[in-house]
Amino acid sequence: MTDLIAMGREARAAADVLAVTSAEKKNEALAAISRALLDHRQEILEANRLDAEEAERNGMRPAMLDRLKLDDKRLASIAAAVMKVAGLDDPVGDVMDEWDMYNGLHVRKVRVPMGVVGIIYESRPNVTVDAAVLCLKSGNAAFLRGGRETIRSNMALERVMRQALASAGLPEACVTLLHDTDHAVAREMMGMRDYIDVLIPRGSARLIRTVLENAKVPVIETGVGNCHVFVDKTADLQRAAEIILNAKAQRVSVCNAAETLLVHEDVADQFLPMAKKLLDTKNVELRGDARTRAVLGDCVKEATEEDYYTEYLDYILAVKVVANVEEAVEHIRKYSTHHSEAILTNDRANADYFTSHIDSAALYVNASTRFTDGEEFGFGAEIGISTQKLHARGPMALRELCSYKYIVEGDGQIRQ
Amino acid sequence: MTDLIAMGREARAAADVLAVTSAEKKNEALAAISRALLDHRQEILEANRLDAEEAERNGMRPAMLDRLKLDDKRLASIAAAVMKVAGLDDPVGDVMDEWDMYNGLHVRKVRVPMGVVGIIYESRPNVTVDAAVLCLKSGNAAFLRGGRETIRSNMALERVMRQALASAGLPEACVTLLHDTDHAVAREMMGMRDYIDVLIPRGSARLIRTVLENAKVPVIETGVGNCHVFVDKTADLQRAAEIILNAKAQRVSVCNAAETLLVHEDVADQFLPMAKKLLDTKNVELRGDARTRAVLGDCVKEATEEDYYTEYLDYILAVKVVANVEEAVEHIRKYSTHHSEAILTNDRANADYFTSHIDSAALYVNASTRFTDGEEFGFGAEIGISTQKLHARGPMALRELCSYKYIVEGDGQIRQ
Repeated sequence: MTDLIAMGREARAAADVLAVTSAEKKNEALAAISRALLDHRQEILEANRLDAEEAERNGMRPAMLDRLKLDDKRLASIAAAVMKVAGLDDPVGDVMDEWDMYNGLHVRKVRVPMGVVGIIYESRPNVTVDAAVLCLKSGNAAFLRGGRETIRSNMALERVMRQALASAGLPEACVTLLHDTDHAVAREMMGMRDYIDVLIPRGSARLIRTVLENAKVPVIETGVGNCHVFVDKTADLQRAAEIILNAKAQRVSVCNAAETLLVHEDVADQFLPMAKKLLDTKNVELRGDARTRAVLGDCVKEATEEDYYTEYLDYILAVKVVANVEEAVEHIRKYSTHHSEAILTNDRANADYFTSHIDSAALYVNASTRFTDGEEFGFGAEIGISTQKLHARGPMALRELCSYKYIVEGDGQIRQ
Repeated sequence: MTDLIAMGREARAAADVLAVTSAEKKNEALAAISRALLDHRQEILEANRLDAEEAERNGMRPAMLDRLKLDDKRLASIAAAVMKVAGLDDPVGDVMDEWDMYNGLHVRKVRVPMGVVGIIYESRPNVTVDAAVLCLKSGNAAFLRGGRETIRSNMALERVMRQALASAGLPEACVTLLHDTDHAVAREMMGMRDYIDVLIPRGSARLIRTVLENAKVPVIETGVGNCHVFVDKTADLQRAAEIILNAKAQRVSVCNAAETLLVHEDVADQFLPMAKKLLDTKNVELRGDARTRAVLGDCVKEATEEDYYTEYLDYILAVKVVANVEEAVEHIRKYSTHHSEAILTNDRANADYFTSHIDSAALYVNASTRFTDGEEFGFGAEIGISTQKLHARGPMALRELCSYKYIVEGDGQIRQ
């Protein structure tokens, strides 16, 4: 039986050590992990081969199977990513703000690690390393629960990382993986308020919902993106067509891809055929309202209410013609998951109306929604994209894995 | 029957309006509320009189009854507090950070309201106004659930505030109070993820635990403070005695009051009698470990394990003699609720060890723990004190009631 409380205690103790570990020492541990991933490649690839064989026997779809598989090249790229994280600035200890109180007390607001970060994720084994090292760099212990399809790979990766941590003089429990992938164990993990400070689900909408519904530990909701692009009547239409092609089809499986195109009625006749021509080059299926179909013809399927709520993550795009920016905003407020939305316009007032009246993590003026990403934003990494408003919003990296505390220094002040 | 979904929808719509309401207009509404509280004093005081009569019949303790009661003076002070909030800086729209991405995209991180803030609280009717106006000023709709003992007072205050909001041209649903104080309704409120963005419990440890256990809406844990003061061997002992008197007894019912005194063994013989002499002036009962009792005698009760875990909120202080700063830190890490802790020392290394090795919201060097407070910190107000690490920590005021969003402007950028 898995003794989660004992594991939680060890993770908490490791987090206490990590919180006061220097940047240098954390970077040495990261370098040791990177080296160990390469040194132990055979052991890791063998475990992964067994996972892949079982997944194939169980009838996993080829696209999923491909995401599960590791090889020399992918492992090298994972090891290189660890070194990249080592090169990022350490967020811990930053003085975020400081001031003197009326009575001479000096207050510093100092960035500190969260403590123990729980991550619940699916399939891809690279997440095991990625999540562990981002936590490590930000001074947090990682408490991981991966998918059962990759349990052998994940256990091999955990073993290798823990050995490297020990060799670098840090507690092995800086990285803890649940070996038991039973759902009941995951549920228990979600309730461990005393041992896990925050829970980040990474994966499908269903996984995220399950975590939200069962967790007692504070959760950061991530990733579901029903993203919109609105083409206003003053937009540069050729650029707009290129942007919607990019937002929809540059990579369809990601949360910042566009799912619905909204077009101002004054430019629908001109713009929709231009957009369709480009989208056809990627075989994007369009599903439109009556006015869209009046312009493009019956080859465009009818969009249902359900379509506008759907995050397709596929070569499908819902389309709707709207009367003005107000109607576009109204539509987005109704259907959006508050991830990323774009307006393409040359009208300053409409751009401002759009960005101030829509409450999503990232709002774009004349750019693709695909930029909502930690790397693109310049954070150097990404642990997920928050779609909630508590704590962090949008791309989350090292700083977003931190909290803060106040250090107040005086010379005997008492309260009057 | 209470239609919580309908109320949630109205609150959400009001929040959408508030999010784009100017500071001037919000301040006009606050001024209208302040005036209305005075203009309608008879109606409010009459409702409060009925609450007090019923509470008295039900045998409420005099101290609690006093907190429940309003009179002309208290109402005037509530109205004045509203004007003070109007005078604070509006946090909404602040550009918290901005930069250019590698491709020329300009990113602004802009402070925005949370949306709808749910507050679950007990007894004191001033919280109804206080919470509502702090939410209003920070652009949030307030969704309130007060105690059943003050339901008449709260309903009168809500009615007066909603009339004032309407007169100022804002939606009445900027302030919503649950009129049905049934626990089942409160439970339903805690699950309204689609309509409430964050839930802040204010009140007893029991209330906070109930909210944490039942909420699906993200919660900010507040207020339970098992705070410690450690007197190191290099402390200025006279000052230290004054600080522990202040931390313990200046006001015993608050979360930032000290509950345990830790004393370095080298100064225990000298310090403990000094401290006791001062604490005796306020009739503070001491409960000590064996070494404390060896110094102070059997007049000091024995402290149990339970004592060290207790937030007394009373004229009682647990005491323990420790070997050094390490043992003090170890004790605090075990028993603390991560609120506020102080070290009194003239040893820089020990001060740094204490502040870096303890993970509480506020750490004091040579000052009383009583300063963990929004007003004292210079925030001008306080909605509560967070003891969790997600989102906000320590005193929370207007900025802590906000989230942020990214506004990204370009000229046609697409992702490569």
